[in-house]
Amino acid sequence: MPSQFPPDSVGVVHPQVAHFTEPFTLQCGKTLPSFELVYETYGTLNTARSNAVLICHALSGHHHAAGYHRESDTKPGWWDTAIGPGKTIDTQRFFVVCLNNLGGCHGSTGPRSINPETQEPYGGSFPIVTVKDWVNSQALLADRLGISCWAAIVGGSLGAMQGIQWAIDYPARLRNAIVIAAAPKLSAQNIAFNEVARKAIQQDPDFHNGNYYSHNTKPRNGLSLARMLGHITYLSDAAMREKFGRELRDGQIKFDFNVEFQVESYLNYQGEVFSQNFDANTYLLMTRALDYFDPAADFDHDLVKTMAQTQCKFLVLSFTTDWRFSPERSHEIVNALLAARKSVSYADINSPQGHDSFLLNVPRYLQLFKAYMDAIEIANHAPLLSSQENENAL
Amino acid sequence: MPSQFPPDSVGVVHPQVAHFTEPFTLQCGKTLPSFELVYETYGTLNTARSNAVLICHALSGHHHAAGYHRESDTKPGWWDTAIGPGKTIDTQRFFVVCLNNLGGCHGSTGPRSINPETQEPYGGSFPIVTVKDWVNSQALLADRLGISCWAAIVGGSLGAMQGIQWAIDYPARLRNAIVIAAAPKLSAQNIAFNEVARKAIQQDPDFHNGNYYSHNTKPRNGLSLARMLGHITYLSDAAMREKFGRELRDGQIKFDFNVEFQVESYLNYQGEVFSQNFDANTYLLMTRALDYFDPAADFDHDLVKTMAQTQCKFLVLSFTTDWRFSPERSHEIVNALLAARKSVSYADINSPQGHDSFLLNVPRYLQLFKAYMDAIEIANHAPLLSSQENENAL
Repeated sequence: MPSQFPPDSVGVVHPQVAHFTEPFTLQCGKTLPSFELVYETYGTLNTARSNAVLICHALSGHHHAAGYHRESDTKPGWWDTAIGPGKTIDTQRFFVVCLNNLGGCHGSTGPRSINPETQEPYGGSFPIVTVKDWVNSQALLADRLGISCWAAIVGGSLGAMQGIQWAIDYPARLRNAIVIAAAPKLSAQNIAFNEVARKAIQQDPDFHNGNYYSHNTKPRNGLSLARMLGHITYLSDAAMREKFGRELRDGQIKFDFNVEFQVESYLNYQGEVFSQNFDANTYLLMTRALDYFDPAADFDHDLVKTMAQTQCKFLVLSFTTDWRFSPERSHEIVNALLAARKSVSYADINSPQGHDSFLLNVPRYLQLFKAYMDAIEIANHAPLLSSQENENAL
Repeated sequence: MPSQFPPDSVGVVHPQVAHFTEPFTLQCGKTLPSFELVYETYGTLNTARSNAVLICHALSGHHHAAGYHRESDTKPGWWDTAIGPGKTIDTQRFFVVCLNNLGGCHGSTGPRSINPETQEPYGGSFPIVTVKDWVNSQALLADRLGISCWAAIVGGSLGAMQGIQWAIDYPARLRNAIVIAAAPKLSAQNIAFNEVARKAIQQDPDFHNGNYYSHNTKPRNGLSLARMLGHITYLSDAAMREKFGRELRDGQIKFDFNVEFQVESYLNYQGEVFSQNFDANTYLLMTRALDYFDPAADFDHDLVKTMAQTQCKFLVLSFTTDWRFSPERSHEIVNALLAARKSVSYADINSPQGHDSFLLNVPRYLQLFKAYMDAIEIANHAPLLSSQENENAL
């Protein structure tokens, strides 16, 4: 039966799991006795092991970035616009790895996992994870895959922050960092929005201090509210105006507190769907990782000194209408890299869609990004292992 | 005993109550059998009754705009910076009236009031009120006070919207409208924030569909969350950065979900205090009145045609860092007034404090505003009634 998928799709992909049995100590001081990371790979690792690209996900992302899990799937991975044969991140050239981060809710060890010490789900006792912890765990995954140096590490938003941290903590282990819609640290306003989102979850009577699994419930109302709020910050004012304006759902005003405007309907729907599919404890962890991200704190709060640690080349991209991490926040990164005499390319992409742009099909963005990726040089050997063979070899 | 208050204070003031016993039909089609408005006055109404200024409050405001309720009070009314002898709204020249709007929770008829038809608090059954309804009720108050034409109607944010509606609905009854930090209607983003705030209240298990009074409880968590969110939109990103930055409350990271950053501590405190002093049903009503405000909807959605109804002079003021109602939203008002060949003065005030600026002591703002107020001509008769005598006369 011929595939139903477009020719530039990576097709059907199978998640893989890496088990790490050594204790893993986190930045907060706590230790996980063991952990698992679920990941996917697209394309083929070359013999020189020089063509590997790591995709780091943002707040609500996961390991399924491209392709389909089944022939019957209608929806591809979350970054399928950018990953595939001939696409921005060209799987004919690159061996692409995307994992679900530690603390996640899509298969990697997280709050829903069983704590081997108690045989109960971690729940509210899952330790705080930071961007540094993620990078350390990703480095273990790279070791496992035999990747000593990434051709590139790519991410948007919280994903981009992981790329920055990699460049600082493991400067010899990546050749390029693609930093999209990011900031060198959160502003007070960013933290404030995260705090309201967390509060919404924590105040939900179904939260039970994070131990809702054993109560056979989940804080759906709180998580839904958190997502609604997040969603507002992902879209630009202009994009919301364009998409919804003041359009009424039922064509006329009903004078009550039920849904009146299309934008209310949209947000409620987004919150509802998200609260069914995501884990509230993971949401808390991800927002806290965002709050804590501040690599310059380790270098006297001097971002130039911080960026002086790095050795890779940088592509920094921002979007004109992004008000969550505005172009000015990218300028801070670019300016520090320039002051530290690093190689950096920067573009501020004209896009009406706000922070969300990094996930969307914005042609100029993807073209510019592709031109950069295509120019990355790769030592030219014959392939050693396909991704499937590689899976079996683990 | 000499007064403890500054010489430019209006001193001790006493709220007054106006009872309206005629049925009052609202825009939603429902009728209140009777209602009360609580208000304060500062200064003296002149014989020509030509020096009256109406102050309209915003979302969380009330009738106590200036002065003190008791000699022992340490905190004056909410707009004491602008109202008093020699101040921006000079009570040596003007007779200033400020009321608590219908649906409020500070003494005017609202959700906490007893519904005469059921002898129970209205609670969740209190009808939706709109800016038009407020203006109509304020016009009844003006009749009661013998004020056929206001020298000026002044307000910021939702207060300014009432001034705009007055100018459209009662063009002969005001000579000046001072429209501060406003918009001609809410954007999708504005509505979205309101919806999240409402949802937070409605999802609180202590909300009981608005009938929490009879359950001897109140949805404090939800109202607190709504206020925290509102507060973020009142402050600018820059102001929050300046005020809190990423400062930690306890000097070091604790790696948990309790308060870590000063900005979290501040927001939680603001939410806590507000949830003790404000009524959640009123919060819902006020946000809905904001959502529904769209005077141009009555004039083919043509703001120029809408503004063509007005006869008064306008002073429009915005603040550079206000992102709730940005200067561009004021431009829409100004442009429509200019196109309709109306008299309008406009200034965009350089202030780092965002939307909140309209309540603050921003010198250039208050100077410019005062210059406009001082230039308002008043027919020069001897005073007929002091505000105290006026109270007794009602």
